[in-house]
Amino acid sequence: MRYAILGTGSVGRTIAAKLSELGHEVTVGTRDVAATLARSETDRMGNPPFSQWRAERPAVRLATFADAAANAQAVVCALSGLATLDALRAAGAANLAGKLLIDISNPLDGSAGFPPRLDPVDTDSLGEQIQREFPDAKVVKTLNTMTAAVMVDPGRLAGPSTVFLSGDDADAKKAAAALLGEFGWSGSSIIDLGGIETARGAEMATGFWLRVYVALGTGDFNFHIQRGR
Amino acid sequence: MRYAILGTGSVGRTIAAKLSELGHEVTVGTRDVAATLARSETDRMGNPPFSQWRAERPAVRLATFADAAANAQAVVCALSGLATLDALRAAGAANLAGKLLIDISNPLDGSAGFPPRLDPVDTDSLGEQIQREFPDAKVVKTLNTMTAAVMVDPGRLAGPSTVFLSGDDADAKKAAAALLGEFGWSGSSIIDLGGIETARGAEMATGFWLRVYVALGTGDFNFHIQRGR
Repeated sequence: MRYAILGTGSVGRTIAAKLSELGHEVTVGTRDVAATLARSETDRMGNPPFSQWRAERPAVRLATFADAAANAQAVVCALSGLATLDALRAAGAANLAGKLLIDISNPLDGSAGFPPRLDPVDTDSLGEQIQREFPDAKVVKTLNTMTAAVMVDPGRLAGPSTVFLSGDDADAKKAAAALLGEFGWSGSSIIDLGGIETARGAEMATGFWLRVYVALGTGDFNFHIQRGR
Repeated sequence: MRYAILGTGSVGRTIAAKLSELGHEVTVGTRDVAATLARSETDRMGNPPFSQWRAERPAVRLATFADAAANAQAVVCALSGLATLDALRAAGAANLAGKLLIDISNPLDGSAGFPPRLDPVDTDSLGEQIQREFPDAKVVKTLNTMTAAVMVDPGRLAGPSTVFLSGDDADAKKAAAALLGEFGWSGSSIIDLGGIETARGAEMATGFWLRVYVALGTGDFNFHIQRGR
């Protein structure tokens, strides 16, 4: 498959690297290619400059949001949630139409300090906002309830854990589930929450996740839905 | 211990029955004792009339919110979240002062249909509202992230799961954790999220829980925090 990964931060890099390792054709999308390549310092999150990361993964291409999306069969939003809609506008509705659009991003606003707040929360979700603004894209919200390292390597945890799907298109959710399988998620570890409006639940999970993260002092955990006997 | 359980619904009954079974002295608090005893039909949630439930548990007493709280060493809020603050006002600040006040309730507003919405959400929490209005009570938010049957019997699930604590008073959290231990929660299954402001995360977990509940078609599950190796 040809994937566009929108976002050059740790989530985008982790997903891009894994997809490339799995043999997919991967283009990372960014707002300004020259500016992304010109950066020479570690970012706020402690990630090395993108050009350094990419030097070790020559198969991964870098392009504008629009070029990356235009050439892809499926698009992954791996941006800071507050930047997601603008990046998708830059990608262009025509370049997203008919395609699987996996949204990993969370609408977290850190302007009032830590922990960041969700906006929207409960009465709407970023997943729904994307689907409303790009009705021809097949939006699937998934993987947003865990840290990047766990997304592509669920076996790193001490036992089974759960990943969730929200979306209106059954075939798109099947394709997303197949991709999760490639990442190492077993069928029984995937819960289909329902339509894209259930992204409200998955995004509120982030508000919960943030407090567990602080309490444990690490993001290396995941929610596991423990069922009845 | 002498416990007051505020609320006559399924959560209140489950907690009251378990505490009584464990040998504690239990008084259920209600707004209007005569009205509660006079009801002869099952409630909206399918629970049998309270008088029928109580006939099988003669050791459990029924009293007004104020009488129940006045005689108790610890108080448990097991009400519909939107009724919690009014019930605590009826219980009276003086009857709560210096006591462990376990809040299991979630501020869910079902007036716009299902799933109900959290109010407040993210920028505040019911746990904090209670602590602000009753500064002399030692509020601990816990058990609100699961269905009643799991609260008092974590072993009913197929494997380990997690219960959370939020509160400002370390001794009150210790007492709450000891009670959780009596319910069957092992020490490693309890995560202390921090101060009462972390109830925002535990309450948002409810917005997540509701979507999982719909997807699974049962509330007989719980969140387990699966950690790294």
